[in-house]
Amino acid sequence: MIVAPELMTSHWLNTEQPLTLRDLRGKVVAIEAFQMLCPGCVSHGLPQARRIADTFSPDDVAVIGLHCVFEHHDVQGRREALEAFLHEYRIGFPIAMDAPSGRDVPKTMAAYELRGTPTLLLIDRKGRLRKKAFGSVDDLALGAEIMGLLQEARLQEDGESDLEPSACEEGGCLVPSNGMR
Amino acid sequence: MIVAPELMTSHWLNTEQPLTLRDLRGKVVAIEAFQMLCPGCVSHGLPQARRIADTFSPDDVAVIGLHCVFEHHDVQGRREALEAFLHEYRIGFPIAMDAPSGRDVPKTMAAYELRGTPTLLLIDRKGRLRKKAFGSVDDLALGAEIMGLLQEARLQEDGESDLEPSACEEGGCLVPSNGMR
Amino acid sequence: MIVAPELMTSHWLNTEQPLTLRDLRGKVVAIEAFQMLCPGCVSHGLPQARRIADTFSPDDVAVIGLHCVFEHHDVQGRREALEAFLHEYRIGFPIAMDAPSGRDVPKTMAAYELRGTPTLLLIDRKGRLRKKAFGSVDDLALGAEIMGLLQEARLQEDGESDLEPSACEEGGCLVPSNGMR
Amino acid sequence: MIVAPELMTSHWLNTEQPLTLRDLRGKVVAIEAFQMLCPGCVSHGLPQARRIADTFSPDDVAVIGLHCVFEHHDVQGRREALEAFLHEYRIGFPIAMDAPSGRDVPKTMAAYELRGTPTLLLIDRKGRLRKKAFGSVDDLALGAEIMGLLQEARLQEDGESDLEPSACEEGGCLVPSNGMR
Repeated sequence: MIVAPELMTSHWLNTEQPLTLRDLRGKVVAIEAFQMLCPGCVSHGLPQARRIADTFSPDDVAVIGLHCVFEHHDVQGRREALEAFLHEYRIGFPIAMDAPSGRDVPKTMAAYELRGTPTLLLIDRKGRLRKKAFGSVDDLALGAEIMGLLQEARLQEDGESDLEPSACEEGGCLVPSNGMR
Repeated sequence: MIVAPELMTSHWLNTEQPLTLRDLRGKVVAIEAFQMLCPGCVSHGLPQARRIADTFSPDDVAVIGLHCVFEHHDVQGRREALEAFLHEYRIGFPIAMDAPSGRDVPKTMAAYELRGTPTLLLIDRKGRLRKKAFGSVDDLALGAEIMGLLQEARLQEDGESDLEPSACEEGGCLVPSNGMR
Repeated sequence: MIVAPELMTSHWLNTEQPLTLRDLRGKVVAIEAFQMLCPGCVSHGLPQARRIADTFSPDDVAVIGLHCVFEHHDVQGRREALEAFLHEYRIGFPIAMDAPSGRDVPKTMAAYELRGTPTLLLIDRKGRLRKKAFGSVDDLALGAEIMGLLQEARLQEDGESDLEPSACEEGGCLVPSNGMR
Repeated sequence: MIVAPELMTSHWLNTEQPLTLRDLRGKVVAIEAFQMLCPGCVSHGLPQARRIADTFSPDDVAVIGLHCVFEHHDVQGRREALEAFLHEYRIGFPIAMDAPSGRDVPKTMAAYELRGTPTLLLIDRKGRLRKKAFGSVDDLALGAEIMGLLQEARLQEDGESDLEPSACEEGGCLVPSNGMR
């Protein structure tokens, strides 16, 4: 179980002030890593992030879009371009622009060792990275995983049980198999 | 919070012996009430039931199709018709044929006061009816609700907390708002 | 180029009197061969037939559903079953019940040598079979093919040109490549 | 019936040399007016243009994307941005960048009096504007319309008939009702 690296960003949009994972402790955090010109991000990654934001209370689940530009930097890397994109696609949740590193892959994307976009990250109430899924993610299983993370923390608050969550493994970090196949 | 009425059936398919809610205590039970000639059942109700069966472990979640014939009894009420339907649509989870009542609406459907098909029912590990949703149900929210029911029981086993689940209200029985909007 | 075999039917639904291909000469005829318990027929074959009926004038294109029962005869073969199906799925165009042959495959289906359902047949204004497509058919290409058949007849009426349509080949009968890839 | 205004462009992509409607006389021309940050263009306008290109022979139907930037000029108006977009979305047919006018709406868009994007334009073999459809267009009807335009010219070549195509009317220019509803 690893602590999720802090977000390293150059700008934030759709929020009055920058967010940090540290400040979000106590909530489950869903991060959608995307690029504005990535077809899979537009067709399913970002719509799924919006559904998460629509389904769960913002008091419990924070949804963040992380704009990880690793190609076409001159086009996608411009703040004005991203703003126009968010306006046209009516995306209202907070968006972080991943900080350029001087190499292709920006800083947060490198810290999380992302394969590409879209990638969905889930971070538990204690700030630990619990899921890293590249590509398409099933809604039914995702709803269950998020609720599992929400309840797990409650378990630990209410009782003395200390669930041992599964470690991050090659290919991703998995939630404990609480009834999930 | 009401105890879910026991299933009243005339036949079972896809199972060696009849199932009862009593025997399923300890599991969450998802019941998809359907009719074989109901377009909404074919296009989204039954596919969603299959996704539930594919996503959760059968040790935790039992998925049952309940064939509630309330129209075209002479066609849909025949066991051979339902068997052909299940074969063509490759439906493998257990199917109960709701017991005819002599009136249009069969017995279990009447006991649950269903408005029509498809209707999704969720029953918690203690056998209580927790959700009754007619029509289309969102996958993300449903995944969360099922996991909420799975974990809730664990909460009560592990700790001393006694969550007060919301009562059944007009229009349906809702899961507690564990972070759900 | 073969003349399309006449329909051999046991009953007609959604029409006051039986239709014959002979009487429909002068129109393009689109025949959707289906079975009520065939998933592909329900999900795309019959909806496409409805779209044909909604798009073209009935003075130019006749749409017919041909119920070709080749399995589950005891269930699908009953007129009451088909009537209930048509009612629930709101199918309003004329439906022919293919005449039983005493073998699995009914008479018209055998005459057309259909592989299965759904199969879309197109018959030109002169009564010749011009397309026989099993499975999924692309809407854009289909719209073009139907219009090609509509216009082709007009060509032959208006001018002296005698287009040589392609012969029926193994695997299907194809429309001439009037600009189609 | 109006002659389609010539394209006024600042750049062409995906083609070795600029195209003109004059040079395309003899072919049917399908023009998809789009903007790279327009959600409807990405979800259905451009995919439909690709399907046209995949369905009809390039000898008969020329497909052109017309990038009509009327908002977010600083972002969408840059050639590099459009190139990145075309690369990511794997769009291979020729793309014209509509010439800026100094006002919001670029020159070709103004000449065609387009309401917005996506808009599909169809131009017949004689260079006349025959369809101008804003928003979503049905595939089956579109296939028929394109084939109607293809065959119409052939009619006029082969015979002496001089079809009187319908005039352009308020709201759009419609193909003659050759069997279309």
